[in-house]
Amino acid sequence: MSNRIQVIDGGVTAATGFKAAGIYAGIKKNNKKDMALVYTQTPAKVAGTFTTNVVKASPVVWDQKLIKEQELVHGIVINSGVANACTGVVGDEYNNRMATAMAAALGVPVQTILTASTGVIGKQLPIETIEAGTLSLADSMKDTLEAGTLAAESIMTTDTIKKEIAVTFELQGKKVVLGGMSKGSGMIHPNMATMICVLTTDLAIDKNLLQTAMSDVVKDTFNMISVDRDTSTNDTFVCFANGEAGNEMLTAQDADYEVFYEALKQVATHLAKTMAGDGEGATKLIETKVVNAPTIEEAKELAKSVITSNLVKAAVYGSDANCGRIMCAMGYSGVTFDPNKVDVIISSGDSSVKLIDQGMGMEFDEEAATKILSQEAVTILCDMHAGTETATAWGCDLTYDYVKINADYRS
Amino acid sequence: MSNRIQVIDGGVTAATGFKAAGIYAGIKKNNKKDMALVYTQTPAKVAGTFTTNVVKASPVVWDQKLIKEQELVHGIVINSGVANACTGVVGDEYNNRMATAMAAALGVPVQTILTASTGVIGKQLPIETIEAGTLSLADSMKDTLEAGTLAAESIMTTDTIKKEIAVTFELQGKKVVLGGMSKGSGMIHPNMATMICVLTTDLAIDKNLLQTAMSDVVKDTFNMISVDRDTSTNDTFVCFANGEAGNEMLTAQDADYEVFYEALKQVATHLAKTMAGDGEGATKLIETKVVNAPTIEEAKELAKSVITSNLVKAAVYGSDANCGRIMCAMGYSGVTFDPNKVDVIISSGDSSVKLIDQGMGMEFDEEAATKILSQEAVTILCDMHAGTETATAWGCDLTYDYVKINADYRS
Repeated sequence: MSNRIQVIDGGVTAATGFKAAGIYAGIKKNNKKDMALVYTQTPAKVAGTFTTNVVKASPVVWDQKLIKEQELVHGIVINSGVANACTGVVGDEYNNRMATAMAAALGVPVQTILTASTGVIGKQLPIETIEAGTLSLADSMKDTLEAGTLAAESIMTTDTIKKEIAVTFELQGKKVVLGGMSKGSGMIHPNMATMICVLTTDLAIDKNLLQTAMSDVVKDTFNMISVDRDTSTNDTFVCFANGEAGNEMLTAQDADYEVFYEALKQVATHLAKTMAGDGEGATKLIETKVVNAPTIEEAKELAKSVITSNLVKAAVYGSDANCGRIMCAMGYSGVTFDPNKVDVIISSGDSSVKLIDQGMGMEFDEEAATKILSQEAVTILCDMHAGTETATAWGCDLTYDYVKINADYRS
Repeated sequence: MSNRIQVIDGGVTAATGFKAAGIYAGIKKNNKKDMALVYTQTPAKVAGTFTTNVVKASPVVWDQKLIKEQELVHGIVINSGVANACTGVVGDEYNNRMATAMAAALGVPVQTILTASTGVIGKQLPIETIEAGTLSLADSMKDTLEAGTLAAESIMTTDTIKKEIAVTFELQGKKVVLGGMSKGSGMIHPNMATMICVLTTDLAIDKNLLQTAMSDVVKDTFNMISVDRDTSTNDTFVCFANGEAGNEMLTAQDADYEVFYEALKQVATHLAKTMAGDGEGATKLIETKVVNAPTIEEAKELAKSVITSNLVKAAVYGSDANCGRIMCAMGYSGVTFDPNKVDVIISSGDSSVKLIDQGMGMEFDEEAATKILSQEAVTILCDMHAGTETATAWGCDLTYDYVKINADYRS
């Protein structure tokens, strides 16, 4: 099925009818871009998943309400630099002003503009700066791929690379495009949604069905990555669908839906893996694949436990094949299993080395293991020999730079 | 009650009838001491709590069996350098040989000698070296305080300071002594027991009652510390009671028991806090106190979530009052609460600064906050304003040195 899906250039503006902008409004100290807009003149269905953190940022509360109450919306305005979380009623008011200003600049109702914020928690938004920024955003928005890229750059905080992707596929003879951008580097941990991710598509799809697709896809993508086990207060994952592809509205989980779901999964997997590999201070992407587990849930828990272990992450940073830590991390995952059945194999590209055989540490080729662990992408395969289910999780190594970035994030 | 308890010099040999030894047997590469013995000629009751990790080291399985089956034992032999975990049936056999050799050297039955191992996982014990070491241990054991200290030094791995303490208290007119030693610096996370901790007392106490005391005391002490969220495969916490104090055997949870329990808690708290403050690479002890929570369980979960957050730990390392991360960590703890009621105050000694007021980040004196966070012991107080229950957890900052130590632990 996935051979029907083609990766194309672009991000949030790749789909028909979507415009975007990214500007420096003056929120960040370092003159880096700090406000973004994604907009569709044709009103769009929207669905989303959000942080499960009890402490929710004001924009998260706003978006959840809008998605529940509104059938159609026009877009989302995002600022980076300040998260608008732990900001009380003032934070709610400032979020409202941000949405109101953006809506006024676009000439649309305030209830059709979602918001997102990312950055320092516990600080109020510089609201006048943001209100002024909404005017520049409305002025400068375009439907070009470059405009999408500007938006993707404007939502970055400690990210070192912008994250965007677009794919195209055919549906009922119509060409459909799905594109997206995301940000996220620290405070990344699998729980419902993570970070900020905005997808746009010209597909015509029922709103509830879009929500079903979103809720399902996060389970195998954004919920399977971790940088630091810290689930943020602002995690936001939304998808706008404006129907401009002209297909007959998707309303059921039929074959057409499966095509769209496959494309959605491909886009979300790409963005999720890119986020894990670009974790704060990271030098390597760690992929943990658990195979032959009794259930998918157990496979997921085991895989997540390995990629979230500080000790595993530090060992990979040092290219040290400290295999005991992998066994140890699975052992405290909460999943019951027979350690004496487990094999652990590390690999990168065509090279692989078996470290654990039936639960026992092996004599292995240290040089070959170090070489594998020195690559930019390392796979840890854990064969449980206890069933047929599989799960994959993605994380990154723990480095001096992670500590450095987070020891003095606010300044 | 606790004014009846006095701290005295010494550790595992402080109580009457206990001998100890610590030697370099040749397991470690760096010529540091690597084997320890704690022994009582008068057979002792023993109780213990162990790791909840599914992957259990061979000595853990051995000790759990002995404690279950034996009424009286003589002591414990411990090696550092190799953990004897993920070592299969060979590991079980080597553990048996280690206990057998120690028992033979002491002239006691093998079923009266517990074992513990700590160090690299997935590597076999150098068993001939260890068997030879048991002879030196038996030869060199003494009842002096210095011998106790040698034992405490011999169980260290990445620990930078030895950890021992002894207290005395009166019971039924008899002087009772309780002493102990522990090790633990990495792979420390609250879950049942943690690390290796050996306590000795000359108290006469029923074995089941001793087990009750042990199981209760870990909940507020060793289960409330974390260095890196990694629950080890080898965690062992045992207490030997040989009855030489001459008191009438304690058999019920009466006033006398309460005195002992208070002493046990004081000793365990001291060792737990010392372990947290000596976490791998740590420069600071972080104490998190959650007050006015609806239940103790919720207070504990909230406190543990704060001390285990990499982002909080890195911020404390950088003396950066990034208060939002504290709220964020409580928010994903799994506990439901109203963020708009929460106050957060940091303190050290007599100085304190309020960072969060009713869930909102405050304008605060940055210089004063930085000064507090630069101290060696920092307290984070979270007032939930939602009940009357309190809990305290201890952790440490996340530093470059943690990464350095763990990026290349095996070499």
